[in-house]
Amino acid sequence: MSWALIAVIISLLGFAVAGYLYKWVNSQPKGDEALEEIGLLIKRGADTFLKREYSVLAKFVVVVFVLILLFLPQPIWTNDEPLRNVLTAISYILGSVLSALAGKIGIKVATIANVKAAVAAKKGIAPAFSVGFRGGAVMGMAVVGTSLFGAGILFLLTKDPTVLLGFSFGASSLALFAKAGGGIYTKTADISADLVGKVELGIPEDDPRNPAVIADNVGDNVGDVAGMGADLFDSNIASITAAVVIGLSLGQHELVFCYGALGLLASIIGVLSSKIGKDKNPSKALNRGTYITTAAFAIITAVVSYAFKYSIRIWAATIVGLVVGVIIGITSDYFTSDDKRPVRNVAKASSMGPAFTILGGLCYGLLSSFPALIGIGVSALAAYKICEPLGPGYAMFGISMSAMGMLSIVGMIISNDAYGPIVDNSRGLAEMTGMGDEVLRITDELDSAGNTVKAVTKGFAIGAAGLTVIALLGAYQEIVESATGEFINFDIMSPVVFFGILAGLAIPAIFSAMLMLGVDRNAQRMVAEIHRQFSEIPGLKEGKPGVKPEYNKCIDIATIGALKELLPAGAVAILATLAVGFIGGIHAIGGFLAGNIMSGLLLALLMANAGGLWDNAKKYIEAGAFGGKGSDAHKAAVIGDTVGDPCKDTAGPSINTQITVVSLVSSLAAILFIRFSLFK
Amino acid sequence: MSWALIAVIISLLGFAVAGYLYKWVNSQPKGDEALEEIGLLIKRGADTFLKREYSVLAKFVVVVFVLILLFLPQPIWTNDEPLRNVLTAISYILGSVLSALAGKIGIKVATIANVKAAVAAKKGIAPAFSVGFRGGAVMGMAVVGTSLFGAGILFLLTKDPTVLLGFSFGASSLALFAKAGGGIYTKTADISADLVGKVELGIPEDDPRNPAVIADNVGDNVGDVAGMGADLFDSNIASITAAVVIGLSLGQHELVFCYGALGLLASIIGVLSSKIGKDKNPSKALNRGTYITTAAFAIITAVVSYAFKYSIRIWAATIVGLVVGVIIGITSDYFTSDDKRPVRNVAKASSMGPAFTILGGLCYGLLSSFPALIGIGVSALAAYKICEPLGPGYAMFGISMSAMGMLSIVGMIISNDAYGPIVDNSRGLAEMTGMGDEVLRITDELDSAGNTVKAVTKGFAIGAAGLTVIALLGAYQEIVESATGEFINFDIMSPVVFFGILAGLAIPAIFSAMLMLGVDRNAQRMVAEIHRQFSEIPGLKEGKPGVKPEYNKCIDIATIGALKELLPAGAVAILATLAVGFIGGIHAIGGFLAGNIMSGLLLALLMANAGGLWDNAKKYIEAGAFGGKGSDAHKAAVIGDTVGDPCKDTAGPSINTQITVVSLVSSLAAILFIRFSLFK
Repeated sequence: MSWALIAVIISLLGFAVAGYLYKWVNSQPKGDEALEEIGLLIKRGADTFLKREYSVLAKFVVVVFVLILLFLPQPIWTNDEPLRNVLTAISYILGSVLSALAGKIGIKVATIANVKAAVAAKKGIAPAFSVGFRGGAVMGMAVVGTSLFGAGILFLLTKDPTVLLGFSFGASSLALFAKAGGGIYTKTADISADLVGKVELGIPEDDPRNPAVIADNVGDNVGDVAGMGADLFDSNIASITAAVVIGLSLGQHELVFCYGALGLLASIIGVLSSKIGKDKNPSKALNRGTYITTAAFAIITAVVSYAFKYSIRIWAATIVGLVVGVIIGITSDYFTSDDKRPVRNVAKASSMGPAFTILGGLCYGLLSSFPALIGIGVSALAAYKICEPLGPGYAMFGISMSAMGMLSIVGMIISNDAYGPIVDNSRGLAEMTGMGDEVLRITDELDSAGNTVKAVTKGFAIGAAGLTVIALLGAYQEIVESATGEFINFDIMSPVVFFGILAGLAIPAIFSAMLMLGVDRNAQRMVAEIHRQFSEIPGLKEGKPGVKPEYNKCIDIATIGALKELLPAGAVAILATLAVGFIGGIHAIGGFLAGNIMSGLLLALLMANAGGLWDNAKKYIEAGAFGGKGSDAHKAAVIGDTVGDPCKDTAGPSINTQITVVSLVSSLAAILFIRFSLFK
Repeated sequence: MSWALIAVIISLLGFAVAGYLYKWVNSQPKGDEALEEIGLLIKRGADTFLKREYSVLAKFVVVVFVLILLFLPQPIWTNDEPLRNVLTAISYILGSVLSALAGKIGIKVATIANVKAAVAAKKGIAPAFSVGFRGGAVMGMAVVGTSLFGAGILFLLTKDPTVLLGFSFGASSLALFAKAGGGIYTKTADISADLVGKVELGIPEDDPRNPAVIADNVGDNVGDVAGMGADLFDSNIASITAAVVIGLSLGQHELVFCYGALGLLASIIGVLSSKIGKDKNPSKALNRGTYITTAAFAIITAVVSYAFKYSIRIWAATIVGLVVGVIIGITSDYFTSDDKRPVRNVAKASSMGPAFTILGGLCYGLLSSFPALIGIGVSALAAYKICEPLGPGYAMFGISMSAMGMLSIVGMIISNDAYGPIVDNSRGLAEMTGMGDEVLRITDELDSAGNTVKAVTKGFAIGAAGLTVIALLGAYQEIVESATGEFINFDIMSPVVFFGILAGLAIPAIFSAMLMLGVDRNAQRMVAEIHRQFSEIPGLKEGKPGVKPEYNKCIDIATIGALKELLPAGAVAILATLAVGFIGGIHAIGGFLAGNIMSGLLLALLMANAGGLWDNAKKYIEAGAFGGKGSDAHKAAVIGDTVGDPCKDTAGPSINTQITVVSLVSSLAAILFIRFSLFK
């Protein structure tokens, strides 16, 4: 029996678990009328955005479908096997649809679980935690299940790695736009709500008088739940694809599906055993789940590898990736946690004014790149050296398995990550409907655990993406070599490669700048709208009973702005890849991918960690340090947080996906580049 | 007659011109007593700092001298030609001493010309411009003269490229620390003076009541004059060295000295013909000088190449570098000039609060990397392709000559650049001694021209450093190949190279973060001191006649802080190179250098351009836009400027030097790495 088939079966088990958890969450007690009403507003806002976003993207997908059909992997009229074009194009559609579906499922459960968790918080922290976490876990199981299912089925049917590349490209191009769109939406609303509400008027977060408050809560769902799910969906598929492409020529592709299936199994074990302990500490509960999953994966794969006589070296390479992933997560925690020096120093410096908040965050963000970069480098080097003795080609396969290892526990990671916006929403709902101080306290604590874990998982996601794209670079090389029949390398000293590197360096910079400028422009529009409402709606500012802001106007601004801004940045990345490929050829693309990975990793780490640090410095001051809320230090820290928001939630995490998309486009179009490039 | 000898002779001509200009500046009318007194305070502060800085660095230089003597290019007890170690060590000392000397000369003339230019401003803008510019030109001629003189003499005496590498390393290691120290000094004083003076108390820049005002003016000299001079001194020598190392095996080293000598000649023509026109526009005068120099260099080299039958291809590669350098300068102007969209957009966004100022600047800074990176890539590719037909080895020589071309007009660039802090000081002196509105207006205009030109020259310096380090990478390869007798390459897909790349990426990030954290810490100390003086010295705040602040306390804080912070960051860069080399070997170093160049270019461009943009957005608002001085937009823009200051004047420009130092260490220690590395 093939492991690809077993992977499909285990992915069905994942769906079953997701279904069970979904039913469980849905069966929890309802809230009162006010709560359900606001919950519905959020749900509708999220559904509307998703619908409009997907209808924009559907057009894009159709255009790309036609292009793939005609040109990829080579022009259909010159292809001896035109069926490959058809299959690649269909699998592209499948990848996009499954990615959209994963986002849709996530939103669906998250907009139910947010209300239910708020209700459960009346009974205590343990039940509320369970609702929030299990809601997130539906997403985790669904995402990993669909990715494994899709990859497994396609491989069983076609055995063609190009088809998998098409599938992966579908998933990642959709993720690129979903993350960009969701990221712009969520930060537009978040920044605008904070700037006018917290800073100008001094009303609390989630105050129902604030016209942007519903948009803000919608944003948590479309940005953090749907966007993040699409991102990890895409990374997971990309790592499987890279490993299959490289492993196929070695006859090791079965092992890829084996480890993928066991990773989902380990995540199921971790998810089902996650419960808040007697210490009632939600952060610990989340971390415990991660450690259980990690240990379960290591043990199960060891046993299976032993039983089936798989190479211990490949197992070791996989585990190196897993361990390094956890270490990268822990080091990002150092730079963003409020009981460590960086956050405290920045909070202290904030008393001197916002310029020092910003400078401090930038500096620590730059420093934070070091452990992650070295970690990725060490795991790539170790995986390579461990697997090199197995024979030619195995070294690169080892790196791809190391990336698989890092992503093996992704089901658990997504569960943790999706938990965050759910309980964040619960907190908002509790505030907006006046559920009382005890519920607020509990949801606050749940929310803060979500933030801590988020910093760790973000470091993890960047590390995983880093290793995955190295593996994708290997896959690209493999494809070019098998197409040309020649060994190729990418010598830094070749001016074509060097030119590619320099061009590649610029792409993540341009891409992230375009996204952040999008947030910037959009937030300016929304702030103007909030000002208008406060000045034109009588009684709103004073909170006169019965007076409600026009929530929908803000939702509209966020939606329209996000839809307008999401295409250009992604298009620039894809078109630049094609331009470099058709001008500089396959060697320039090798350099381009390397340059892209480099500046992408650097900028993603800087943005994620500086952003997380600013966020927590603000929270640390709000908890009473350096004068607490309303002090000068607090004002400065709020400015830092506002700068950090689009860095950490819009640009930073989108960079991962951008790098993956560029890598996949290169692999898919490799044969075109070989045949039609200006330079050779 | 050898071109190296001619280069030495022309460098003597450069000295003669510098001497003539110095005498001319010195013979200009003196100021009144108050002016001379404050001028003396600035001069003394600068001299004291330089003396203390050099005495710290002297110890470092002695230690490195001994290390070179013992170990480089190989352990003296295993070297068949121990004299090479001795010569390399001596040339290292020579490089350091000449670099220090160039800084010293610059400070000497700048602290005279600042007073004289303020006096001349009473007669009008034309005479004041001449004094400021000719003061700067002394520095320009001295720097280029000494670098050409040193390189020429050493080459004539030894014909050994390793000796030149030692010389270049001496120049660049001193530059590294001088720029770091000067950069920390100047921004400590600038930020502190602004924060307390402009922001808190609302007193004008350069108000004599401000205790940090003298330190601020001293900072312009030690940071911008001495630091910048050391930087371009170092780039210039590095580009000559790289071209000689690569050209020697082709028998083309004479051409390097030829073009170097002609570059100085062109700069002399440009400097002597720079005069303010009838339009009384100082910016135009400065740019005209640059264009004249550029044209003169292109024409003279064409004529000489024709007369001596030198290859037209090498000439073309050189001119490509020159032209691209000018283009890069012009594009940085787009991102930092206040009549273009980026500055205006950020100024407009400032009305919404400082977070938008910061975000806007970061975004445009990221975007600004694109034209420069592509420009460097295109000129490297073009130079390579143009010279490739000349035979093996010529392609890389073409790149090194392209870097020479970009740096050929460096004499003129330095003159323009040193002009800036001189007239900035004049403005300060006019303000402090109450020389009247007309003088203030004139010095303001001169100062603003200095700022505009500075943005252009900074882009230019980064471009030149980029090409130079590519050439240095070629020099490193050449050295390794001639030592091992084998052809080597740096394949991105080799895990050792890739590991090197990732480690290299982190270094400029860590280095710049350490420098900026240094400024941050130091400024906090100085702000506290200024607060103390304003609260403890009676009558100071009110400006009671006869009450003076304790200027020296602030000067001391800036000095001590800068000296404390300057060594660690530079040491980290050098030690990391040695660690990577002794662990990963020559291949890892190849990757390390490439990674270093990449993140270095990206961060340097981001920091220089975002910083310049914030500075000019503030000035644009101060000139009356969006509410002018005192408006919310202005407050936000001041915060942006404060963040940008250490980016653009401390970290950003130091990164160039850091990359150069790392490249030179690698080349010098290449043979050690070959023999003693852990991995091969």
